[in-house]
Amino acid sequence: MASNNGNGNIPDIVISRLPIYLRALNRLAADGQEITSSHELGQRLGISSAQIRKDLSHFGGFGKQGTGYHISFLQDRLRKVLHVDREWEVALVGIGDLGKAIARYRGFGDRGFHISCLFDSAPEKVGQRVENLLVQPLSELHTTIETRGIRLAMIAVPAEHAQAVAAHLVEAGVRGILNYAPINLSVPSNVHVQYIDPVVGLQRMTYYVEDELI
Amino acid sequence: MASNNGNGNIPDIVISRLPIYLRALNRLAADGQEITSSHELGQRLGISSAQIRKDLSHFGGFGKQGTGYHISFLQDRLRKVLHVDREWEVALVGIGDLGKAIARYRGFGDRGFHISCLFDSAPEKVGQRVENLLVQPLSELHTTIETRGIRLAMIAVPAEHAQAVAAHLVEAGVRGILNYAPINLSVPSNVHVQYIDPVVGLQRMTYYVEDELI
Repeated sequence: MASNNGNGNIPDIVISRLPIYLRALNRLAADGQEITSSHELGQRLGISSAQIRKDLSHFGGFGKQGTGYHISFLQDRLRKVLHVDREWEVALVGIGDLGKAIARYRGFGDRGFHISCLFDSAPEKVGQRVENLLVQPLSELHTTIETRGIRLAMIAVPAEHAQAVAAHLVEAGVRGILNYAPINLSVPSNVHVQYIDPVVGLQRMTYYVEDELI
Repeated sequence: MASNNGNGNIPDIVISRLPIYLRALNRLAADGQEITSSHELGQRLGISSAQIRKDLSHFGGFGKQGTGYHISFLQDRLRKVLHVDREWEVALVGIGDLGKAIARYRGFGDRGFHISCLFDSAPEKVGQRVENLLVQPLSELHTTIETRGIRLAMIAVPAEHAQAVAAHLVEAGVRGILNYAPINLSVPSNVHVQYIDPVVGLQRMTYYVEDELI
């Protein structure tokens, strides 16, 4: 997808790494650190320092050889590039065990997002409150999302309902979907989907764990 | 970390992409497809086809220019490289909303893992059954994990307890932790940690979504 927001064309693969860099920087900042290096970031993230310098060079200017990166400057820059220097409303569909856990997740704060509406199809869930938000019926999804101009949603419904919910969200104006259901969603090309998949996380470790047992 | 399992030294960043390739291949296979190309995989994954060819070339031999990849052959090869051509037992700690949702997740099947024991510190949860597994008290964690030789665990406890649970798991012999709690874990260098973080997924989309609204 062509992207141009004053940063030229940044490859998708670079964009996909920026949230990882930003999270590492947030942690360093929380520990009171002010300066970091591509070497330190690389060690924390399992990415080569050369790759990190190359990725960050897409935004020009910062990170002179030998002086390291100013963490707060780099945080600001990455937040701007990723458009999370503001707060996005996110709709959450599916208020079962997983949906409730997501609604209560404390990792959203100050990172660009807040869940602002909840939807479920089950009559016994509609009208309940989770984290002070009212669970709305699916019949209100379209109007709520359209009226409030919500562009992001999370799907936490059973796999067999996820595609129908995705279509419903897209029709209402959602352009980015974080999908927790273990199925591949089919969406128009102007809609972005990211998958939360624990198996990918586990498979990223077994290569190393097995090595150590041999 | 040095790795050598007959594949030479595969860079960590390449290893981290293999589960994504494997998931895409599984989906293509489920749709009945037998052959794919670096171009098709690249389009599905937002990764350049050159990068995919380069990544897959680490395993030598397969994927001749112009003929594409045999999906089932490539699935087998990636499963072997990632050591998921067998089934790993996984311990799950924290049986709240999130833990229950993970225990019930249907995406594990046939991808190399099954959750084989559950732990929680709350007396009222201990002794309950979730997906036919008994919730055990934390006091049994060490013995169960050690006796069964379990090397992988998932942490779904509140953030303030996650570090203590991680230390406990590592002491019992766990070498790979999938952490759902929104904190950074500190573990010995021979232990691997992966994070499940919805904010990273959302931040990977806002770059593009915003562009379209401007």
